[in-house]
Amino acid sequence: MTPRGPRPAGSDTRADILLAAAREFSAKGYNGVSVRGIARSAGVDPALVHHYFEGKSGLFVEAMQLPADPGPTILSFLEGPREGVGERIARGFFGLWEAPERQERFVAIVRSAVGHEDASRMLREFLAREVFGRIAASSGVPDPQLRAGLAASQMIGLAMLRYVIGYPPVVQAEVEELVRLVGPTIQRYLVEADPS
Amino acid sequence: MTPRGPRPAGSDTRADILLAAAREFSAKGYNGVSVRGIARSAGVDPALVHHYFEGKSGLFVEAMQLPADPGPTILSFLEGPREGVGERIARGFFGLWEAPERQERFVAIVRSAVGHEDASRMLREFLAREVFGRIAASSGVPDPQLRAGLAASQMIGLAMLRYVIGYPPVVQAEVEELVRLVGPTIQRYLVEADPS
Repeated sequence: MTPRGPRPAGSDTRADILLAAAREFSAKGYNGVSVRGIARSAGVDPALVHHYFEGKSGLFVEAMQLPADPGPTILSFLEGPREGVGERIARGFFGLWEAPERQERFVAIVRSAVGHEDASRMLREFLAREVFGRIAASSGVPDPQLRAGLAASQMIGLAMLRYVIGYPPVVQAEVEELVRLVGPTIQRYLVEADPS
Repeated sequence: MTPRGPRPAGSDTRADILLAAAREFSAKGYNGVSVRGIARSAGVDPALVHHYFEGKSGLFVEAMQLPADPGPTILSFLEGPREGVGERIARGFFGLWEAPERQERFVAIVRSAVGHEDASRMLREFLAREVFGRIAASSGVPDPQLRAGLAASQMIGLAMLRYVIGYPPVVQAEVEELVRLVGPTIQRYLVEADPS
């Protein structure tokens, strides 16, 4: 006999919240959505959302099926001495992308963001707040948001050539070779007051 | 009365060749296609293809509706003293993208390359041969194909954030500010023997 006790507590509620979150983020972007609004849309108490998810950022990560929560990950790359931060970010970025199961999902996210304005807006606002914003906040350079964007542009461009478009010399390079070559670029953007 | 003389010479032949070229490039990539094969597919003499288009590269540029032929353009950026090459490439790249009518077409090409493997392969092979290859050939650094890829990755990532995804600090930056910040990156990749 199949046991017929109560369903695992909250299994449906959790799914309902994720569904509502995906709908809300897609319609209003990352900035336009609140945990309270998602709770309302899912028909649950906001306290329940906080019970299941780590705030708006955690909810976004799960609703979008991001392979990792970039917020805490980025913070771990930023720790340690200033002089190695460029290499740590580059190495950490490749560490996230190289695992095949994550890579596939990342590529799908890039495809979606490039192809659909809704997805683009969500991702742009999420990255600006939870990733680039944290990098900028830890950086002592002028115009830190632009600098964080430049660092991100280097890593995004590499991901495009290595994982999405597939330019052979970049695909075949060893990760550590890439880290050695692009680490100083990230370092310049994030650490040097005048990198020109 | 409408004049009923002969049609403008070659108007149909030219269109036929372009259609055949688009079909061939899409099916076989840039490397797998020859001018002779396109002529055969269009049912015309190869000499006619050479009459209308500047070789395979020119045919690709027109068949794909590229807003500019990057080959000669890149060569013009590479001319002049070595020390300014990074800034000239960055400035030239933005010069191509900033014009609204070209920008729209570039963004459409990026979307297509990210979304479809056929388009991705065509563009990847074309860029490798006609753009990155020329940059690499003019560069005296070790592993020049990889270095050209790194330079391209920086510019592609910037194009993603400025024109495709739209991260505001990168969108709002002045072109000359971006040139000042990323010029030295391109310079390092293409000119310095050991940029780490």
